[in-house]
Amino acid sequence: MSMQKPNGTQDLLPGTVEQWQWFEQQARDLCARYHYKEIRTPIFESTELFQRGVGETTDVVSKEMYTFQDKGNRSMTLRPEGTAGVVRSYVENKLYGEPDVSKLYYIGPMFRYERPQAGRYRQFHQFGVEVFGSEAPAIDAEVIALGYSFYQSLGIQGVQVEINSVGNPASREAYRSTLLAYLEPMKEELCSDCQTRMDKNPMRVLDCKKDQHRFADAPSILDSLDEACTTHFEQVKHALTTMDIPFTVNPKLVRGLDYYTHTAFEYKCAGIGSIDTIGGGGRYNGLVSQLGGPEQPGIGFGIGIERVLLVMKDQGIEIPNPNPLEVYLIALGEKAEQETPRLLYQLRSAGIRADKDYQGRKMKAQMKSADRTKARFAAILGEDELNRGEIVLKDLAQGEQQAVLLTEWIEHLKYKLEGSL
Amino acid sequence: MSMQKPNGTQDLLPGTVEQWQWFEQQARDLCARYHYKEIRTPIFESTELFQRGVGETTDVVSKEMYTFQDKGNRSMTLRPEGTAGVVRSYVENKLYGEPDVSKLYYIGPMFRYERPQAGRYRQFHQFGVEVFGSEAPAIDAEVIALGYSFYQSLGIQGVQVEINSVGNPASREAYRSTLLAYLEPMKEELCSDCQTRMDKNPMRVLDCKKDQHRFADAPSILDSLDEACTTHFEQVKHALTTMDIPFTVNPKLVRGLDYYTHTAFEYKCAGIGSIDTIGGGGRYNGLVSQLGGPEQPGIGFGIGIERVLLVMKDQGIEIPNPNPLEVYLIALGEKAEQETPRLLYQLRSAGIRADKDYQGRKMKAQMKSADRTKARFAAILGEDELNRGEIVLKDLAQGEQQAVLLTEWIEHLKYKLEGSL
Repeated sequence: MSMQKPNGTQDLLPGTVEQWQWFEQQARDLCARYHYKEIRTPIFESTELFQRGVGETTDVVSKEMYTFQDKGNRSMTLRPEGTAGVVRSYVENKLYGEPDVSKLYYIGPMFRYERPQAGRYRQFHQFGVEVFGSEAPAIDAEVIALGYSFYQSLGIQGVQVEINSVGNPASREAYRSTLLAYLEPMKEELCSDCQTRMDKNPMRVLDCKKDQHRFADAPSILDSLDEACTTHFEQVKHALTTMDIPFTVNPKLVRGLDYYTHTAFEYKCAGIGSIDTIGGGGRYNGLVSQLGGPEQPGIGFGIGIERVLLVMKDQGIEIPNPNPLEVYLIALGEKAEQETPRLLYQLRSAGIRADKDYQGRKMKAQMKSADRTKARFAAILGEDELNRGEIVLKDLAQGEQQAVLLTEWIEHLKYKLEGSL
Repeated sequence: MSMQKPNGTQDLLPGTVEQWQWFEQQARDLCARYHYKEIRTPIFESTELFQRGVGETTDVVSKEMYTFQDKGNRSMTLRPEGTAGVVRSYVENKLYGEPDVSKLYYIGPMFRYERPQAGRYRQFHQFGVEVFGSEAPAIDAEVIALGYSFYQSLGIQGVQVEINSVGNPASREAYRSTLLAYLEPMKEELCSDCQTRMDKNPMRVLDCKKDQHRFADAPSILDSLDEACTTHFEQVKHALTTMDIPFTVNPKLVRGLDYYTHTAFEYKCAGIGSIDTIGGGGRYNGLVSQLGGPEQPGIGFGIGIERVLLVMKDQGIEIPNPNPLEVYLIALGEKAEQETPRLLYQLRSAGIRADKDYQGRKMKAQMKSADRTKARFAAILGEDELNRGEIVLKDLAQGEQQAVLLTEWIEHLKYKLEGSL
């Protein structure tokens, strides 16, 4: 009986995995330019962390987590998102004691037990950044710019930035009352989810997929912001404008949890037939203290890798072929075959990407394999060449071939390969 | 109350994570040279995969796995090792139908519920390779050489390669009888684990940490090999010799599970006070069919990242500082500060690694921060400079400074930074 991968997970095989490698390399390079450093936190954490750090009333925590008892009878959960673990790590490792702002990024798997569908997996992957220790509006703008630049670096067209401010707890409390007064008369007409949300978290009603169209004339949270919140938001917008990053203000873009403050933002992109959110984030000045740390402001975003790769596919974006093979070695006859381990080792030790057949196939099949790998050169060693201390190099792109002394072939190849860069 | 990471897991923070990035980059570069391509399989798999692919009688499967029921009541397990998932993926995705040998590598987290101790974690990480589809002794030698080259590329000194052959099932059956006849008279003196092993898997007795010293005169499996197995082993040794890879034959190096065949090998390194195994692998020609695939030979190794990083630390190996900051921007006064988001965005869009202060600190503290980041240049913008359309660039290594027009500063910096490569 053959085995299968779990529902909602993926095998990333050669031919596909290169896109992931490229995505990650772009993320790493861009983070280096923005001076963000990587942090890696465990794949599972105590369940309580997510209950407190994501919120027990959220669907993620109440319905979708992979929670289990470990052999020591502690409740553990495969991380369903990236922020809680990074905040926990920031607090536990006292990074707030360092003199500079902590600018961090992460790339890795997350887990949610959801119904699998196109672009949505139970093991999915995110690239995210988190910044701790600064309330400056300029850092909000920097984080938004980093995400925007990332999509640019991948070659994605038509990315739209939507921003909003959810203010501080006081402004949000004021807005909550205004919003409830607006929603109350229509409560009976709303979906049952929205009716529940009205009790627990009325700002989330505005996000409802079903009822959204009803709220065109809902009061705007921006009208409830106090002066400090308004100034912060104006400065974020001003900084984005000076950077020439196009954005629109969407007052319905809310993040419902209590520790979210000030700037909220999403990246959207026109996909096939619909506008998709391809990333988003915001400020969470209350989260560090909520997880047991000091009062330290934070802001970050998360970008789903699977979804972005789908957009790239939709837009027909091709990635450069990384690390193409340089030499395919072909031996003719037993005596030449005996030399191949040493010759390959020579090539690879000199930094040359090289391979050969390991199935004992005939010359013609080996030449086909050389073509399939898109190797730059075939290196052909027959008994005659071996007796003369030579090897034949055939340039597979240009068709030329020449015999080269085995004492000089590495130098010769390096010269040819570097010259072709 | 503050939260903590689970016992036996690690936070990899800036300052440490760079070693991991470097390790991984070396692995990826070397795999490209050897023409191995990455495969990524899920973090968890069905529990049955590991029961069948690792073996129900092993400690790993019987005692150490993180097993849980998912919300669909299927038994899932966080992968305790890398090979089973890769073999499952090779079979499920029918990679055996491709014309060339499958040469694969993986890097990622594995999970075992063990007592945490120095260099041993419950979430640990491995770099491994697996090759399917070739029985050629040259591929055994290639896999061994790849691992050896990897340690070389990290700068690790004193790596020893030990190899052995465990033959085919028939040779192993013959050896089993010989070995049992040798062990029987001393059975009462052996530890209880060994007594159990004698019944289940006598070859594993030779590995016993407690009783190993008793077996100096044990029969060698090499004497039980048939002619084909002996020839295979001779050819592996010959290939390693032509590559100048130093190795010793250790007839006690056995891998007890039924699907292991022919070559077994380990990498050892003198650590502080003891010889440590820092990686190992072997051929497993029976595993693909055991997991429901066709009869296809396989061979691979696994290298524990944590253990190798410990060895590097012991040996005082320093890694190059990757991606140092190039420009630290300092604004003096409110008007200059307003310009910084745009200027930083200019730098980063031009590929320059740049940062600034986001805590509103004074000039002196900002200069200290610039030094701490080891930035190559401080770029200082005061109101006077701004009015003249200039910025001052200070070379922090050489101490020189000069004012540059803001219309030309990016070009100027790129020239300076590239010139210094």
